Amino acid sequence: MPRVSKRTGQQSIYFENPPVITNWANIVGPMEGQGPYGQEFDWVLEDYLFGEQSWEKAEAKMLRETVKLVASKANLPLGNIEVLLAGDLLNQIISANFAARELKIPFLGLYGACSTMAEGIALGAMLIDGGFYSTLTVGVTSHHHTAERQFRFPTEQGAQRLPSSQWTVTGCGCLIIQRDGVGPRITTATVGKVIDLGQSDVNDMGAAMAPAAADTIVAHFRDTGRDPRYYDLIITGDLGKYGLALMESLCQKLNCPLGQHVSDCGVLIYDIDQDVHAGGSGCGCSAVMLCGPLLNRMQAKEFNRILLVGTGALMSTTSSLQGETIPCIAHAVAIEN
Amino acid sequence: MPRVSKRTGQQSIYFENPPVITNWANIVGPMEGQGPYGQEFDWVLEDYLFGEQSWEKAEAKMLRETVKLVASKANLPLGNIEVLLAGDLLNQIISANFAARELKIPFLGLYGACSTMAEGIALGAMLIDGGFYSTLTVGVTSHHHTAERQFRFPTEQGAQRLPSSQWTVTGCGCLIIQRDGVGPRITTATVGKVIDLGQSDVNDMGAAMAPAAADTIVAHFRDTGRDPRYYDLIITGDLGKYGLALMESLCQKLNCPLGQHVSDCGVLIYDIDQDVHAGGSGCGCSAVMLCGPLLNRMQAKEFNRILLVGTGALMSTTSSLQGETIPCIAHAVAIEN
Repeated sequence: MPRVSKRTGQQSIYFENPPVITNWANIVGPMEGQGPYGQEFDWVLEDYLFGEQSWEKAEAKMLRETVKLVASKANLPLGNIEVLLAGDLLNQIISANFAARELKIPFLGLYGACSTMAEGIALGAMLIDGGFYSTLTVGVTSHHHTAERQFRFPTEQGAQRLPSSQWTVTGCGCLIIQRDGVGPRITTATVGKVIDLGQSDVNDMGAAMAPAAADTIVAHFRDTGRDPRYYDLIITGDLGKYGLALMESLCQKLNCPLGQHVSDCGVLIYDIDQDVHAGGSGCGCSAVMLCGPLLNRMQAKEFNRILLVGTGALMSTTSSLQGETIPCIAHAVAIEN
Repeated sequence: MPRVSKRTGQQSIYFENPPVITNWANIVGPMEGQGPYGQEFDWVLEDYLFGEQSWEKAEAKMLRETVKLVASKANLPLGNIEVLLAGDLLNQIISANFAARELKIPFLGLYGACSTMAEGIALGAMLIDGGFYSTLTVGVTSHHHTAERQFRFPTEQGAQRLPSSQWTVTGCGCLIIQRDGVGPRITTATVGKVIDLGQSDVNDMGAAMAPAAADTIVAHFRDTGRDPRYYDLIITGDLGKYGLALMESLCQKLNCPLGQHVSDCGVLIYDIDQDVHAGGSGCGCSAVMLCGPLLNRMQAKEFNRILLVGTGALMSTTSSLQGETIPCIAHAVAIEN
């Protein structure tokens, strides 16, 4: 009768038998395919509709097809995936819901805005290490055009974007977590608190999310006793270039300097000449960077220890219109060879 | 090194050390306070604004105050609640996000529409039985006026409702799950698949959700080897009176007749003369019925074994406007003395 707590410190979990990320897959949109990692993505869409009648249906199809892709890489029939943890940015997470309808896999819906991949990995690893499942999938998707018209303006309107704006990634990342197998392992996770320092500018989400990222990163090192140098890479979800700089300076002020091996998925995914301003965002951003370039590099032993810090801005258009500031969250997961 | 799988059958989990529901609390709106269980709720609001400037802020406050209430019943400082699993119906689950901001408890956001309480209990029990936490809270809230204006019409418009329409409950239920303690225990859980038989009428959600409820109930009995007579009460989330009848007839057709001890939170929560048509709905419906009348009756040994089947309709206004049918899900949790 195991009674040992697997919690360490106030917010972190260590896994007794670290679950394995055995397979990963991704689909990205045309613009992500033209970025610096374009050659490394599994499937680059030629257009934003993906053969569907609406961008929303295309977004659900991306998740459905990425789950099928990762299952086929793993040589697993879909029926052998025991549970699907998934989410997206759309109201009522319809992309995940409609994908789950076609996939017929038992389904648990999550909402963590752009932190959803990290939230899903943390929860998925707990469900595996807890002995409840032996094989599960985490999938997260976002689509530039569905997010723009839901959160901002119809893209046809061509509204001007501010220098601090980020570009929502069209992309879906899925990974399979298993109890046994070969691959990088999830060793610890830090579950974040909602942090809101009073920023209300929805055109500067990096600044809103930076304090939540710093809070979780500091908690991670405090709880685990690790030092930032332990990791080959500390990578945040999608703070963008200004948010990343702000997060690093906050960590410095909190006596937790992060050193040189720090980056951000939103900074990496596009080239500077792609006119995306502060960088990429959207829950697909960290999902495709992890389930592609980052895990590929871990497999090649280019990195052996990374800390993924998924960051999410948890407001809605309603809360912003009602004068609320932007509550944010970050969850961290350590992945190690 | 525990390697035993705690899964039974294709979709179900049994808990090795069944986690305990040690405390529960609820807040309801004025109309729920006038219903047949009005006297049993902890806190009946006098109006829908709860001292706030908007219904949405009132909904977030309901969750915040219910978490505080359940913590005070348990004599636990908020800081001793190790993680909060929460969700609601609003876009981007803002009620949960804003409540978590004030509560400062590590937070995992869920979206399962009206199945969220059952989803949260299933996940929460896994996190406790897996050894990751010893004390956590699950909280779910909904508000009649925020849901109406988001999903249907502004309530000020006084749109006519159909006989099959359900009335979104204003209410919040929270419970504390602990590894050790006194109270009813969570013994098994069945995680549902998304089921959609092609119903697209958003004024008849009970009919849309009934097949998902039947699918999960049949899976539960198949996976666990239990018989419907095992339970003193099988209670669905909020199918309403027509959905409940449909679900019972579907189970009958699937060779799983449920017998006499079957009901629905949406059928129970209002009196027939309260003009709610088919009954209550909203994720607060099963949350307040469970975290009040039902768990109170278990404590009094009036019931010793119940199966709560939370049911959710997973569409959005966007998916409905794009001609999609309504995908639904149900999760079941067995709670036993």
